[in-house]
This record gives sequence, C-alpha cells and structure tokens, in this order.
Amino acid sequence: MQNQAIGVFDSGIGGLTLARALKIALPEEQLIYFGDTAHLPYGDKSTAALQAYVIKALDFFLKQKVKCVLIACNSASAAAYELAKEYTASRAKVFNVIDPTVNYIAKHSEKIHIGLIGTRQTVNSGVYNEKLSRLAPQMQLHSLATPLLAPMIEDGFFNNQISRSVIREYLSSPKLKAIEALVLACTHYPLIQKEIEDFYKHQIPVIDSAGLVAEEVKTYLNQNQLLREAPSVSDKFYVSDFTPAFEATTRIFFAKKVKLKLYKLWE
Amino acid sequence: MQNQAIGVFDSGIGGLTLARALKIALPEEQLIYFGDTAHLPYGDKSTAALQAYVIKALDFFLKQKVKCVLIACNSASAAAYELAKEYTASRAKVFNVIDPTVNYIAKHSEKIHIGLIGTRQTVNSGVYNEKLSRLAPQMQLHSLATPLLAPMIEDGFFNNQISRSVIREYLSSPKLKAIEALVLACTHYPLIQKEIEDFYKHQIPVIDSAGLVAEEVKTYLNQNQLLREAPSVSDKFYVSDFTPAFEATTRIFFAKKVKLKLYKLWE
Repeated sequence: MQNQAIGVFDSGIGGLTLARALKIALPEEQLIYFGDTAHLPYGDKSTAALQAYVIKALDFFLKQKVKCVLIACNSASAAAYELAKEYTASRAKVFNVIDPTVNYIAKHSEKIHIGLIGTRQTVNSGVYNEKLSRLAPQMQLHSLATPLLAPMIEDGFFNNQISRSVIREYLSSPKLKAIEALVLACTHYPLIQKEIEDFYKHQIPVIDSAGLVAEEVKTYLNQNQLLREAPSVSDKFYVSDFTPAFEATTRIFFAKKVKLKLYKLWE
Repeated sequence: MQNQAIGVFDSGIGGLTLARALKIALPEEQLIYFGDTAHLPYGDKSTAALQAYVIKALDFFLKQKVKCVLIACNSASAAAYELAKEYTASRAKVFNVIDPTVNYIAKHSEKIHIGLIGTRQTVNSGVYNEKLSRLAPQMQLHSLATPLLAPMIEDGFFNNQISRSVIREYLSSPKLKAIEALVLACTHYPLIQKEIEDFYKHQIPVIDSAGLVAEEVKTYLNQNQLLREAPSVSDKFYVSDFTPAFEATTRIFFAKKVKLKLYKLWE
C-alpha cells in the first residue's frame, strides 16, 4: 500500500499548483494526476454534474490502486467531498482543499472578518461558511464569486495591466470592504497572489491552500506509515480531453511543462 | 415538414444571439435550442471531442424531427460541420455560422487584409482561411485567438473599463496591424461590437455573422417552401447542465430572460 501513488484530481490543469506543492512536501511520492479537461471549467457547473464527474474520476483512481486521492479543485471539493468519502470508504483516503484551509483559519487567526474569493460553484455552495462557523463561530466569512479570474490566468493574463484592473474591480466589491484576511479558494489564484497582496498593500494576510493541503497529506501518510519506501518512479498526468494549449499551460501551474496523456474517461 | 421546428445548437447560451437574430428574421418559426452547458466552453476543446458532442446533439434534434439545424457556435462549426452534414444527410439540412460570413466577405469586400478574432479552436482550425482562400484567393486572413473575451462577456464585463482594456490589449496585437475589416467569429462578440468599433474609431467595418446566418436560413426555407404555416407555438430551450447563473445570463444574449430546461443528453 505505502508504495502506491497519490491520486490528484482537478477539473483541468490548475490543480497542478497543488501537485507541485505535494512534490515539494513529498518529493519521493508518485503522483497520478487526472484533469477533467473535457468538462473544464467546473466553476459554473451544477452540483449534480460535479458529483457525477468526481465519482467517475474516483473509479479511475481506484482502478490505479492509489493510496489516497486529493480533490484538488475547490468547486469539486465543495460539491462532492462528502459523497467521495462515502463512495471510496476504506478503499482510499480522500482529501479535499477546503478543510485544511478552514482548520488553519480557525486555529491561527484572531481576525473576525475573513474574505474569500472563488468560482460561483464554490461560493454558492456555502461550504466554507458552514465549516468555519462550526469551528470558529465568532468569525464571519465574506465571500465573492470571481469567475473571470481563472480563465484570465489560464490565458496568461497575470502580472500585467489587465490582471491588475480585473483584480482591483473584484476586490473593490463592497462585500470585501471590512475584511482582515483573504482566502484564495481556487487553485489558479496562487499565480496572482502577489498582485492581490499588492492591492491590499500587504496589510492583510492572503491565504493560499496549496501548502496547507500538502502538509495535511504528508502528516496523514507519516502517521499511518504510508510514506513511500520504494525507489521513486515518474509521475503520470492524464486529461480527459487533449489540446496542445493545455500542455503548454502546464508550465504556468507546475513550474515546468509536463507531458499530458489522453485518457477517455467519458467513452 | 414545413411546420417542424428549427434546431439551434450551441456550446452554451452565447448562441442565443443567433437564436435572437433568427426570431427577428423569422418570427413565425418555432426554435428548439440546445446549449451543451455540461461541456461549455467549446473554445479550448479538441476537434474529436467537439465532433462527438455535435453528433450527440444531432441525434437529439433528429428525434425532435426538426426541419433544419443551425450549429450556432463557431468552434463546433469549425470542428464538425462537414461531419454533421454527412451524418444527417437527407434527414435535416444543417447550417453553420462560418459559410454565410465567408460568402459575405468574398462578395462584398474589395479589401485584401481581413482580420478575425475567435476562440482557440476556431482560429487553430484554419477553416475560415481555407474557405475564404477558395472563394477569394486575393484576400488574406489575419486571425487572432482571443480566449478571454467569451468568459469576460458571460461574466458581465462589457461596456466598462475592464472590457475596454482587454479588447485594446487583444486588438493591438501585431497580427491585426494592417487589417481593413474585422470578422467577429464567436457568438458572444456582438455584445462588444460597439467597443470594438470604438477601438477602430469606426474606420473599418466590423462584421458579425448573426444577421447573415439568419438571412441564409430564411432564404433556404423560402426557396424550399419550408416556411412555417401553422399558428406559431412557443420556442423551447434546453441545456445539458442547469444552473441559475445560466438562466440569468440568457437575458444578456437573448434580450429577454428565457426558461431553460435540463435535458440530460449525457446520461
């Protein structure tokens, strides 16, 4: 079991920011990445649709006999994490990107007003709110859907005039007026973290989940004697639809270009 | 046959701009609209994926016994029009959004350098170039992929500072430097047509296909005695995934809100 791979699931290639954080925290582990590029982006899809996609992806990972699966997408985590846990049961541990972030906020922050930006699906699900109010009822979450940010980053608009305008437009929303910290609830957003910090003149902390999630996975593997002991083997990256543009964009999210393999999950 | 509906297929709800043009040209006709919101957007998908989606949609329309089908999406038209024609054969006439536009340019323009903006799929397919060079070999097409424009419009960013910046950034590309006319090769773009014309200070014509396509359909129905004669009945709008945000956005593209019905084409 310990020498099995870690499965990483995302709607597309944005989840490679999390795969990269995993590789930094756990360089010996093998990753099997699956990006559902045939349905990308997940941010505007219905809950039922995302649940169906996640189940199909879990079947893929279970066939590959992974030791655990990380749902590296906020929209999918919001819509389908509880279902995924029930579905895999003892067959594989499932992680999401929401709980590590919520735990971190609840533990480490004396703030009251926490801002959050993410896709429509993530924001409308209310899942961050629900989880946070259970752990830290004094905190108030102020969420804003920012659906243009992910496609903007995917198209290479970051660290430039346009990304600064779009970010300023969104973050100037009255909804985020009084916040004391901001959660980046989308795997794409680490690429504009600096611009967001600049907008706030570095006066409030901007919280990205990638490192928090990687630490949680590492702790779990460690505590359960599941750290890989065999010599390391190469990672695998699958997508449900292949275009050269996807492969080129992997460089943005994984800091190096990776070879994507088409896996027709939907046929 | 003449009293059957017209099928309109799009990746999502952007094709409603074409449905609207059809209703203006042919107010008595019944439309059956299908938006494949489960796979939206089509602009970054592979050719094979789009071909599979179009075939599935055609099966839906043929079951509804439509008299013709309009593929109201440039990406799908580029990837799957020839296939769609072969597939439906005599069962229904198929229209695309590319040919009426190419015919118009070839006939009506004495210009040489024609610009074109659209999704990656549309631009990379080279289909406009191929068709235009057959009809008007002296013309040169200068195409630019502008993948952020469709999500930008869908998220309500038009006629504002951000849309002006993004449009300026794209249209300032060296690829479009010497153009004498610009083709809007995406159903979303009519909503930013005025901003594009402003960018060019109204010095070059900006060509949108909606009206041209509607005229082509009208001429065909007329010449083949297929204009509806029964009393008009209400149009139907289906999507493969339903969210309230989709329904709200119909107002942008159809000038009024329409009621979307979920049709699970993919189950």
